[in-house]
Amino acid sequence: SSSSTASFAAASNRVAPSTKAAKSVGDIRKLKLITAVKTPYLEDGRFDFEAYDRIVDDQIAHGVEGLIVGGTTGEGHLMSWDEHIMLIAHTVNQFGDRLTVIGNTGSNSTREALHATEQGFNVGMHASLQINPYYGKTSNKGMAAHLKAGLAEGPGIVYNVPARTSQDIPDEVIEELSQHENFLGVKECTGNDRIANYTKKGIVCWSGNDDEAHDARHIAGAAGVISVTSNVIPGLFSSLMDARDDELNEAVQPLVSWMFREPNPTGLNTMLSMMGACKPVFRMPYMAYDKEWREEGVQLLEALGGDAVAPSVRSLSSLDDDDFTYVYSSR
Amino acid sequence: SSSSTASFAAASNRVAPSTKAAKSVGDIRKLKLITAVKTPYLEDGRFDFEAYDRIVDDQIAHGVEGLIVGGTTGEGHLMSWDEHIMLIAHTVNQFGDRLTVIGNTGSNSTREALHATEQGFNVGMHASLQINPYYGKTSNKGMAAHLKAGLAEGPGIVYNVPARTSQDIPDEVIEELSQHENFLGVKECTGNDRIANYTKKGIVCWSGNDDEAHDARHIAGAAGVISVTSNVIPGLFSSLMDARDDELNEAVQPLVSWMFREPNPTGLNTMLSMMGACKPVFRMPYMAYDKEWREEGVQLLEALGGDAVAPSVRSLSSLDDDDFTYVYSSR
Amino acid sequence: SSSSTASFAAASNRVAPSTKAAKSVGDIRKLKLITAVKTPYLEDGRFDFEAYDRIVDDQIAHGVEGLIVGGTTGEGHLMSWDEHIMLIAHTVNQFGDRLTVIGNTGSNSTREALHATEQGFNVGMHASLQINPYYGKTSNKGMAAHLKAGLAEGPGIVYNVPARTSQDIPDEVIEELSQHENFLGVKECTGNDRIANYTKKGIVCWSGNDDEAHDARHIAGAAGVISVTSNVIPGLFSSLMDARDDELNEAVQPLVSWMFREPNPTGLNTMLSMMGACKPVFRMPYMAYDKEWREEGVQLLEALGGDAVAPSVRSLSSLDDDDFTYVYSSR
Amino acid sequence: SSSSTASFAAASNRVAPSTKAAKSVGDIRKLKLITAVKTPYLEDGRFDFEAYDRIVDDQIAHGVEGLIVGGTTGEGHLMSWDEHIMLIAHTVNQFGDRLTVIGNTGSNSTREALHATEQGFNVGMHASLQINPYYGKTSNKGMAAHLKAGLAEGPGIVYNVPARTSQDIPDEVIEELSQHENFLGVKECTGNDRIANYTKKGIVCWSGNDDEAHDARHIAGAAGVISVTSNVIPGLFSSLMDARDDELNEAVQPLVSWMFREPNPTGLNTMLSMMGACKPVFRMPYMAYDKEWREEGVQLLEALGGDAVAPSVRSLSSLDDDDFTYVYSSR
Repeated sequence: SSSSTASFAAASNRVAPSTKAAKSVGDIRKLKLITAVKTPYLEDGRFDFEAYDRIVDDQIAHGVEGLIVGGTTGEGHLMSWDEHIMLIAHTVNQFGDRLTVIGNTGSNSTREALHATEQGFNVGMHASLQINPYYGKTSNKGMAAHLKAGLAEGPGIVYNVPARTSQDIPDEVIEELSQHENFLGVKECTGNDRIANYTKKGIVCWSGNDDEAHDARHIAGAAGVISVTSNVIPGLFSSLMDARDDELNEAVQPLVSWMFREPNPTGLNTMLSMMGACKPVFRMPYMAYDKEWREEGVQLLEALGGDAVAPSVRSLSSLDDDDFTYVYSSR
Repeated sequence: SSSSTASFAAASNRVAPSTKAAKSVGDIRKLKLITAVKTPYLEDGRFDFEAYDRIVDDQIAHGVEGLIVGGTTGEGHLMSWDEHIMLIAHTVNQFGDRLTVIGNTGSNSTREALHATEQGFNVGMHASLQINPYYGKTSNKGMAAHLKAGLAEGPGIVYNVPARTSQDIPDEVIEELSQHENFLGVKECTGNDRIANYTKKGIVCWSGNDDEAHDARHIAGAAGVISVTSNVIPGLFSSLMDARDDELNEAVQPLVSWMFREPNPTGLNTMLSMMGACKPVFRMPYMAYDKEWREEGVQLLEALGGDAVAPSVRSLSSLDDDDFTYVYSSR
Repeated sequence: SSSSTASFAAASNRVAPSTKAAKSVGDIRKLKLITAVKTPYLEDGRFDFEAYDRIVDDQIAHGVEGLIVGGTTGEGHLMSWDEHIMLIAHTVNQFGDRLTVIGNTGSNSTREALHATEQGFNVGMHASLQINPYYGKTSNKGMAAHLKAGLAEGPGIVYNVPARTSQDIPDEVIEELSQHENFLGVKECTGNDRIANYTKKGIVCWSGNDDEAHDARHIAGAAGVISVTSNVIPGLFSSLMDARDDELNEAVQPLVSWMFREPNPTGLNTMLSMMGACKPVFRMPYMAYDKEWREEGVQLLEALGGDAVAPSVRSLSSLDDDDFTYVYSSR
Repeated sequence: SSSSTASFAAASNRVAPSTKAAKSVGDIRKLKLITAVKTPYLEDGRFDFEAYDRIVDDQIAHGVEGLIVGGTTGEGHLMSWDEHIMLIAHTVNQFGDRLTVIGNTGSNSTREALHATEQGFNVGMHASLQINPYYGKTSNKGMAAHLKAGLAEGPGIVYNVPARTSQDIPDEVIEELSQHENFLGVKECTGNDRIANYTKKGIVCWSGNDDEAHDARHIAGAAGVISVTSNVIPGLFSSLMDARDDELNEAVQPLVSWMFREPNPTGLNTMLSMMGACKPVFRMPYMAYDKEWREEGVQLLEALGGDAVAPSVRSLSSLDDDDFTYVYSSR
């Protein structure tokens, strides 16, 4: 596998501006803990930058090394592209010297993916996350061409999540892409067997499943995790990625399980609202967990040690139903 | 089922302008053949209105009663919203007095769905097609709220296609939505058993599967079909919807099967290009079938009778690979 | 002048779709009364289509033959392009068979002018209004190229209003443009001497000044007027365009003068709000006349005969300051 | 005037994120040389970031202390807002620690001005430039409310250029705005008498006229200049702002005069193309000076000392007409 790995070290073919703080492909491949960061909102649905900056500061303080900005977790699919690029630019400007900024600038439309990825690199993001065409789907030939076009803009991670896209990226497509000089690796959500298989071939993987991430890293050979739960317990996830700790891994599972009872980021949005890390404002179609589940969530977080593990906790509360605001429209 | 049906006849709660040629909810529910119409392109990726108008004229001439504009087939997900609304407005203006114009103005973003659906009704579309939040997904509660918000804008068909969205719309959500005065029915892609079940409850269904559409209508009680293959053989599909004809249904299956060898509209785009109905221009990530499959497609169409069944055929040819143009970007 | 006039009759070089109800260049050139129609708003700043449709119905009933949609009067410069095209499409769909729909799809950006003009024709508008590059300005060479590009999309009226654009379109540019087959004529705001001069050369003119419009038509040879005040008194303006009537012309001058005490459409927005033709909602930066002027406006309208001349009057009132809503943002 | 000046020092009421490298209002008011920087293009009309970064590096090296990004000179009116914000974000990210980045985020639409100004501050710009409503115009009351709304987003310079806007900002409006804590000063284009008058009242001014800038600073009391010509001869303009030098001021006048023979940035675009600082690509409606004027321009620049004064000169040439590319559309 050394020969295919060799090409990974090649220089980027990115023609866009070299940013002051560009990260090398090699450095990005070593990131262990990347958070798919929450996007917090004001009551009118605009971004709450004050909450965002506080969240990111806490992330950095507790060992997070990179961020996916506007991922599915961060609800990039609920943003206009100018909002999305604005958030990437803001993150680069405020935090780009302290962690790696990865913009989720893929799309099921090749045109949109290229537009957003180009803009993201122009405002200084370090890497992109590229998705295969969800919903519209396409042939394997079309999928490979789509993903290659995204990679041509700059260093990129390919994201395989058939439970969202309805279409798996086959091994042969990943192997073909892995020859691209801008290919960083795969965010893989189909399990640790596949991660182990890719890793053997020299293809860098990040687990996309919080429940399997510890084993992915310490058994299956993943570089690390692109995590949702690390929004809540960044310090514990940092520990889980740093060294094998089966006991800790077991201890966090009940919380992880709670987070994904409904499609992400339903649980995350609920939890961060309860922690006071953000206002309890949801862009539709996401709606908070019901009261009963919220109370369980509070208990699960408290069981893990409260403030110590959840640095953004300002006032842990299960809240009332009418504390939540649901934003349907940008008007 | 008569009591639940009763509410269907209620007046629209649409606050937008009443259009000159508005269709009644009852009339729309009787449509048997609706085509998810192809969007043809010029070499630079813009819409080819000349080809589009010719295709729609042919559709009308061969019995098509309604169109989905910018569906997944028409590649709404590859359009900017202003392009999409422009195409709906154009269709209304040119053809709105001859068939029912249904805009695919749903989205996985509630904000976008509302914006587009409102604009679509403002430019005169007769109904919308509403999708549950694909890719981003959400809880059933969020899904129902999302779809109800879309229906509040005007008469709408709900679209269930878990093979694209990764998330089924459960029966209980459909039943809840069916109480909404603007609910027209379901485009259902999960099979005729479910259609039969819905039909028994007074919920209008259109089959979203061309291979099952004949039986859906004549056995399972569907109102008709929202079809892809009717772009190619509208007259035959019109016959299939008008009266039971098992022989004809069997005869078209090889072509139908060919159409869906790769995710739609890969096959449709290839076929219409070969028929000369549109230029062989694809917006990425769609790419034409390979030569061998193209030749099979020509034979399958010819076997059905050529010109007689495919009114848009101008020069049937399997084309060469380099006849195809792939548009990556709007620049 | 007959030779230069000859070219005016040439067919359009428009490649976009031929709309069902396309108007001939010759017919558009004969329009006497075109209203730059008001865009009414709901309290949240969205278009009020109910008020709009009522206004347009009244316009048609009182002799208006054409509309400028989203002109400076209709505040096209305060619309997003998708709103603007939506309004054009709506107008075509609802009223395109009863009057001529002219979209103000010009811009100081050539790219935007071409994009909007193309979209406007695609949704069925009959003609465009093209402006020279205001604010950014350019050389005469650039100006001519810019305006020609707009005309290439379809039949167009060129708009000369240096009191807004800061740059006059020189005679030689107009004469050069007049050779273009899609050139309909000029909306000229610099006075009747210039109109008389253009008219002698066979160049069709519409006056852009309500106070001079009667003389422009009956003395200087203008085809008619593109009017603001005709939003308020369409019947009287129709009479003024139909036949010379110096007495009537004198009678309307006090109202006309009132309308333009502040930059248009400040006065128009105030008057239509007072007439109940629209809600008293202003998109910023427009703000209503003060109470004292409003009272004068009511008296001036009443002096002209009230309901008889102002068909949209529902409840004439000078309103209170806090009746007005000012919308700053689309959120 | 000390009492009115006092309010200038008040803290910003900006609620947006505090950026890492925010500049104080007091520091921005001391800037002597701000360049309204050129936006260079690739052949397809996209931004040429490589050329841009080289130009800005040269600007900094020769004493420029601040940039207006996407001004009328930088053709902000020919950009989509997402392009414009992207360019501001890029400039902040690459150069924000070396000079002050002022985004031209004003608009004649209050909604657009607020949207763009908010986004600009979110991506880290240090200040905005706010324009009164050009083209659409409004009452003084509307104008003041419009400009105050822009200032509420963060520190801003108000731009008075009636030769573009067709409407002067009256002294009383400026004086009212000068009480706003985010008001930095005026970019004034109506001459040095007015600047002297404002200066006496404690209102900070930058001259917007390159020919008068030296006297504005050293005689009329201006803080400095927001310059076009400094794109070409930044070092000389830096000297002119640093200390009185009537001889040098006289020496640069022929070049300055050449720059404004046609509406700016026609001359600037031509000159930078001839210097090899950017590709000879123009977004329409701007078109290069004719050959004869180009040759004069080369001579005028050479007369000033060539490379020494024009750091971006790579290959000074009057070019041929067909060296120039004119981009009409983003397709």
